[in-house]
Amino acid sequence: MLIYLAGPELFLADAARIADAKRAICAAHGCTGVFPTDQPPRLPDPGAPEWYRLYLANEAHIRGCDALIANLTPFRGPSADPGTVYELGFMRALGRPVHGFMNTAARFGSRTLAALGRQARRRADGAWEDAEGMAVEDFVLHDNLMIEGGIRAAGGSFETAAVPAAARWTDLTAFGRCVAKLALASRSGAAAARPGTS
Amino acid sequence: MLIYLAGPELFLADAARIADAKRAICAAHGCTGVFPTDQPPRLPDPGAPEWYRLYLANEAHIRGCDALIANLTPFRGPSADPGTVYELGFMRALGRPVHGFMNTAARFGSRTLAALGRQARRRADGAWEDAEGMAVEDFVLHDNLMIEGGIRAAGGSFETAAVPAAARWTDLTAFGRCVAKLALASRSGAAAARPGTS
Repeated sequence: MLIYLAGPELFLADAARIADAKRAICAAHGCTGVFPTDQPPRLPDPGAPEWYRLYLANEAHIRGCDALIANLTPFRGPSADPGTVYELGFMRALGRPVHGFMNTAARFGSRTLAALGRQARRRADGAWEDAEGMAVEDFVLHDNLMIEGGIRAAGGSFETAAVPAAARWTDLTAFGRCVAKLALASRSGAAAARPGTS
Repeated sequence: MLIYLAGPELFLADAARIADAKRAICAAHGCTGVFPTDQPPRLPDPGAPEWYRLYLANEAHIRGCDALIANLTPFRGPSADPGTVYELGFMRALGRPVHGFMNTAARFGSRTLAALGRQARRRADGAWEDAEGMAVEDFVLHDNLMIEGGIRAAGGSFETAAVPAAARWTDLTAFGRCVAKLALASRSGAAAARPGTS
């Protein structure tokens, strides 16, 4: 099973190290991890600008994978990295399994209020809004409901781990739980598809 | 043509007013706008939690539409609303036209550096990174490259308008340009599909 490893770790200076660590966990479960910066199956048009070649490579990676695990740890604000969220929606629309993990236990509503600080204010009905009058979504979820809804609709799991701040981008405990669940579901599915061989 | 009106305006207290304004622009171009809070084509499982019913309704809306226009105006940080970005990736994977607009002229790299403030620092190679060592993506695009790449790959356009801060969530100039381009492409496609009737 090929698993696309969506997440903003590619912005780390030592991205190759975290890519190797994630691939090793996948391999231990009989799966192959595909990191966004891996060579894509087919090289995009060399005449296109660099950023668009990167886009096309990632899209080709996602299309070529059987499942996706997204690192949804809050990135420069209350929500996940938008590139990762785009990829999550993309894979969900392809109808394949998507899982997510987040290296914090704090929920979306409380993270948003913390980020807004004194800009947050109450509406007449008691709901919170920001200084521009936009409501603060709070269903006690991990992020915007589209993110958690897509994972649920795809039959995936959302794993969280409360880790020290210094380990936010390197702790792979919650990621490992996603891989284990994907591998288990894959084996169960394969067994169910071949009832005569079990 | 049914156009899904993705965007965080649904968080406004007067969301119905902006929904009506967007629908009127669509109608003027012979299209029908579908707002996320509209009644979905098929009501989701009433036994599911509210947030998940909202998710399923939005997913059904997107699947039922012919195209999507995303309001990608920066939302509580340098990037677009994550729910909107999820929906953009979803529609792109369905292979249908996606367009985006943004009510600011500032680019993603400079918005990110402004948000980071004094936390931004230089790597040895001159690239900017944040306090956690994550690089600041800067291809002089409007947001993360996955967002702009998806729109380009789908043949869509990315429209921007520099508007006063107070009109960030209500100015529909750039949105209107997206609708006009979609309607024009739709008419051209329809004419091309029926060469004998033109």
